[in-house]
Amino acid sequence: MNAHITSLITKDLQHIWHPCSQMKDYLLFPPLIITGAQGSYLELAEGGKVIDAISSWWCKTLGHQHPRLKNALLRQLEQFEHVIFANTTHETIVQLSEKLTQLMPTLNKVFYAGDGSCAVEVALKMSLHARQITRESKKTKFIALKNGYHGETLGALSVSDLGLYRTPYQSLLFDAYFIDDLPYVLNKYDPLWFDCTEHWQRIEKKLMPYAETTTAIILEPIVQGVGGMQIYSQDFLKRLRSWTQQNGIHLIADEIMTGIGRTGKMLACQHAGIEPDFLCLSKGLTGGWLPLSAVLTTDTIYQYFYADYQPHTSFLHSHTHSGNALAASVALEVLHIMAEEKWHEQASRLEEVMFAMMTDIAEQTGKLTRVRGIGAIVAADLVDTTAARPGFEVYRRAAALGALLRPLGNTIYWLPPLNIEMATLEELMDITMGSLSEGDVE
Amino acid sequence: MNAHITSLITKDLQHIWHPCSQMKDYLLFPPLIITGAQGSYLELAEGGKVIDAISSWWCKTLGHQHPRLKNALLRQLEQFEHVIFANTTHETIVQLSEKLTQLMPTLNKVFYAGDGSCAVEVALKMSLHARQITRESKKTKFIALKNGYHGETLGALSVSDLGLYRTPYQSLLFDAYFIDDLPYVLNKYDPLWFDCTEHWQRIEKKLMPYAETTTAIILEPIVQGVGGMQIYSQDFLKRLRSWTQQNGIHLIADEIMTGIGRTGKMLACQHAGIEPDFLCLSKGLTGGWLPLSAVLTTDTIYQYFYADYQPHTSFLHSHTHSGNALAASVALEVLHIMAEEKWHEQASRLEEVMFAMMTDIAEQTGKLTRVRGIGAIVAADLVDTTAARPGFEVYRRAAALGALLRPLGNTIYWLPPLNIEMATLEELMDITMGSLSEGDVE
Repeated sequence: MNAHITSLITKDLQHIWHPCSQMKDYLLFPPLIITGAQGSYLELAEGGKVIDAISSWWCKTLGHQHPRLKNALLRQLEQFEHVIFANTTHETIVQLSEKLTQLMPTLNKVFYAGDGSCAVEVALKMSLHARQITRESKKTKFIALKNGYHGETLGALSVSDLGLYRTPYQSLLFDAYFIDDLPYVLNKYDPLWFDCTEHWQRIEKKLMPYAETTTAIILEPIVQGVGGMQIYSQDFLKRLRSWTQQNGIHLIADEIMTGIGRTGKMLACQHAGIEPDFLCLSKGLTGGWLPLSAVLTTDTIYQYFYADYQPHTSFLHSHTHSGNALAASVALEVLHIMAEEKWHEQASRLEEVMFAMMTDIAEQTGKLTRVRGIGAIVAADLVDTTAARPGFEVYRRAAALGALLRPLGNTIYWLPPLNIEMATLEELMDITMGSLSEGDVE
Repeated sequence: MNAHITSLITKDLQHIWHPCSQMKDYLLFPPLIITGAQGSYLELAEGGKVIDAISSWWCKTLGHQHPRLKNALLRQLEQFEHVIFANTTHETIVQLSEKLTQLMPTLNKVFYAGDGSCAVEVALKMSLHARQITRESKKTKFIALKNGYHGETLGALSVSDLGLYRTPYQSLLFDAYFIDDLPYVLNKYDPLWFDCTEHWQRIEKKLMPYAETTTAIILEPIVQGVGGMQIYSQDFLKRLRSWTQQNGIHLIADEIMTGIGRTGKMLACQHAGIEPDFLCLSKGLTGGWLPLSAVLTTDTIYQYFYADYQPHTSFLHSHTHSGNALAASVALEVLHIMAEEKWHEQASRLEEVMFAMMTDIAEQTGKLTRVRGIGAIVAADLVDTTAARPGFEVYRRAAALGALLRPLGNTIYWLPPLNIEMATLEELMDITMGSLSEGDVE
């Protein structure tokens, strides 16, 4: 290691507290120093490159340094970078909003925030607030799914089920009911995908007592990401949506991970042919370039708040960078590229390829089980979990071999840029295979 | 109005739900269409320009289109835009972190998020989580200040006192104790600024019952922004800090608005010569270019979490865009510019000028009272509040006359870029004077 690299790592460890990390792990597994990135690869200071197998936390949908996204950013940069978004507007955000509201016919209004978590908080607040305006004073509770994740601000965490992320903060969270016994599938060919009647009958029975007091159900449609890339029946989503409509309950679809093409459709809700009352987008929205999130909702919800000014009937939530022009310019270009080049269809094609590859790895190594996948997502669980942290060991090995995998606990998964090249996928397959073999990490 | 402008406004109103707005107001006061921005001015599609008198919600510390910030962004853009920040690092973020940890000797670690609200949530969570690790199981409560504001995600809102923003969501918030009877001042020459003994004696008595059960006190040091630009005694902050130290309570300083030079010091805490346990920065951190927030904390806090991996002793909070390289590149350049050109000292000079100007307006019009100011912030309250929404009327008039003022309720304030030119301030003075006169809005 040369002196510059050593010095950077020393300073990093001296001053930076990395997200989602036990910092002591960084002694064993020092941070990779990124000096560049191109397509599906990250370039390292020490030389060489690694495959960004998880699209940098699921956001780099079109890879790194996409020339069209760069040009869009440069064009906006010539005009202005960011202006307060209360009582102002600009061409870029108007065009982006028009495009976003074309995703689903009933979702005709867009509210902008910065983080995915904040989008979830906005949707939760809008739903509850609407009930006060419509005087449905009983409807104050939220329902979510077991094994779901919606972010880590305290509101988002309250409707997330993963103890790993929520337990230390339990005393600050509000109560929610979590739907159990979900009809999980491994792929779209599972009979449960088409028909989950039996599960639904049991679930509906358990839901009924909450029907009157619930304002909204929040869920990750079709795929639960942080919960281990668990895929559930589209029939369940369809039935749950009907149930919310029968009971006057809002549906909040958190498509922060699945939105903008990841699952083979522009939106995961489309697998079930449903439209929610609130749709949260982030990550892929800017192709992972800049923080931006959006909450899409219906004219019905919007109209509840539309009135002569009264403090408590206006939705006064604000974020400084709501409508940020630089972020919006990249998001608009992402939507143009998706419309022209249909990368969600490519995700659909990758589904077969990636599933076959991961199945092959599972069979050849005998170390993986429950291979599952949809769109450009494939996952499998480690069979042998007797070691202290087997997922972490695979992570270290894979990084040494040339891929940034970052397993979720003991779940190994790929979630690459939608435009990843086939040769890169094959390389990723070899590296994953290698990272599962015995022997010390280099 | 030409057809293009009409079409943009129509589409905006059709699809966009603006932040912190009653959308029906937009019928009366249509959104200004921004086509460019330069220094302290926003350029309008209809022609002409308006002064950005509140730095686009307090973030454009160095104005719009600063050439050095643009160049910094362009340089980073040549390398890469954003990469996952768990187990990776890069030169820009290391340099930024080194610079940030030089702001206050005891704050040696930086955790990155995107929004100001998220920074607050991170600080709240770290404080509570640390108590579990140190087994101080009684310390679970938070104290905040009456009239304080820390953002609008549900955790941040729980420690915010402003009913306007919190009342509709009350059922989702956790309880906090709010310190009342604050020693407010109009400027740094008020005797209370130097000595608030009497207030403190009353406050301390009321605080004592909470000493054992409190994990942290959160506050906006010196200036409460959304609460109406209310300035309080530095002596109070000093005494409160001593009290937290005597009682083993963390202090969280929310410098999202005040940080990076706004009050005439790099950090508002420096007026009281104190260092908190957690410091939240955002807004001015990137000069208002891109969303980025940072939580600075001590090695002591960091060390509590530093251990062999165990799920519940690691701080697993994450945001997708933590460490975003584009945002970090701009933030680093902001810190370089502040160090070289000392704009916080200019803010200190503006304090006198802006206070004199606003006092002049108050005296000449007889319409303003309680002129108050510190650094590049000056505020005053409307005397006559018998009209339905007098602040909103001033806002509309000022926009028509050439300044974006956006009052806080009935508080008129200026919070311009620190590098605003004197001629622009004089223009702003004339416009503010005009916006206070009788007569219909154009």
